[in-house]
Amino acid sequence: MNPSQYPSRLIEQAVEEISKLPGIGKKSALRLALHLLKRPEIQSVQLASSIVKLRTETRFCRNCHMISDDELCGICSSKKRDESLICVVEDAKDVLAIENTGQFNGLYHVLGGIISPMSGISPSDLKIDSLLERVKSNEVQEVILGLSPTMEGDTTAFYLTKKLKEFSVKISTIARGIPIGGDLEYTDEITLGRSIVSRVTYK
Amino acid sequence: MNPSQYPSRLIEQAVEEISKLPGIGKKSALRLALHLLKRPEIQSVQLASSIVKLRTETRFCRNCHMISDDELCGICSSKKRDESLICVVEDAKDVLAIENTGQFNGLYHVLGGIISPMSGISPSDLKIDSLLERVKSNEVQEVILGLSPTMEGDTTAFYLTKKLKEFSVKISTIARGIPIGGDLEYTDEITLGRSIVSRVTYK
Repeated sequence: MNPSQYPSRLIEQAVEEISKLPGIGKKSALRLALHLLKRPEIQSVQLASSIVKLRTETRFCRNCHMISDDELCGICSSKKRDESLICVVEDAKDVLAIENTGQFNGLYHVLGGIISPMSGISPSDLKIDSLLERVKSNEVQEVILGLSPTMEGDTTAFYLTKKLKEFSVKISTIARGIPIGGDLEYTDEITLGRSIVSRVTYK
Repeated sequence: MNPSQYPSRLIEQAVEEISKLPGIGKKSALRLALHLLKRPEIQSVQLASSIVKLRTETRFCRNCHMISDDELCGICSSKKRDESLICVVEDAKDVLAIENTGQFNGLYHVLGGIISPMSGISPSDLKIDSLLERVKSNEVQEVILGLSPTMEGDTTAFYLTKKLKEFSVKISTIARGIPIGGDLEYTDEITLGRSIVSRVTYK
């Protein structure tokens, strides 16, 4: 839609800003703007205030760099977590995903990205130094690399493995293979091939 | 996702507010919140300010009730539009859709909804009185009902036709039939049936 066709300058500005969000185009943005116009004013005010507060007041845990309300996040400050285990992930979404499984009781380390020469992200842009510092100064026994099985994930895993080798710490990666409930027949060749190479011995 | 699993209260509040928007669930809202956290602060501030401004400063045209920056909207105040023609639509989105076709040069009348007993919307909730006022006091020659071909749209059209009958004004409706470029074979029975009943004579 041509911007000159918007019925008002305010709508145009709102559409412009809303459509900067990922996955929201101009048409969806217009739909959202018109929706807000129909709702009570308080809803728009609360939405706006929650966005500003989120961005300006959110802190990051000084230990694992996870989003946090305080200096130390709830996981790092918990007495119930196993401090000898660190799971390294790309970002906050991954922490939430793993927490939701209920299968991990260690601590995390959020890199804040993944090595990607294509997007201009190099190791120095990530929280790698602080990871090495944690491994060095604490009684960490195992570092689990919880990275996506993509080119960038594998590159990052390779880089971290090289850096972590000098410490007497076990390094592991989350298992790759056929998804539970997935159909062998419809699994892509690379995953299936890798699941045979990395087969697990029962007996 | 259980709210207690959000890493911070601020994220939780933002997700809560963002997911009130139509078509955005908790998961998408979390994705958007995490995205904003990664972007410069100015983006969140501008987004929030554009939303508040939109909701608090937007006015509605006193003639056609379309969203407007001024007392009269750009269409109603234009000297180039045909004032004898009024197209009645449900809401602002419809005005934009029709304007985009470039096929209509009259004025609009935005009802602000559609008669829907299921949603508790009765004729008194809509801008019907002001439509009758416009038809009565101006030199309107034709009222085009630009309503969706749904149960509610047809009910509203029926109601308006009854109300407009007492004025010497032509009443028409936008054509219903097979969409241009649509395949006859795949058109639903009701549309196809109606397109035969309402066939247009060539000669």
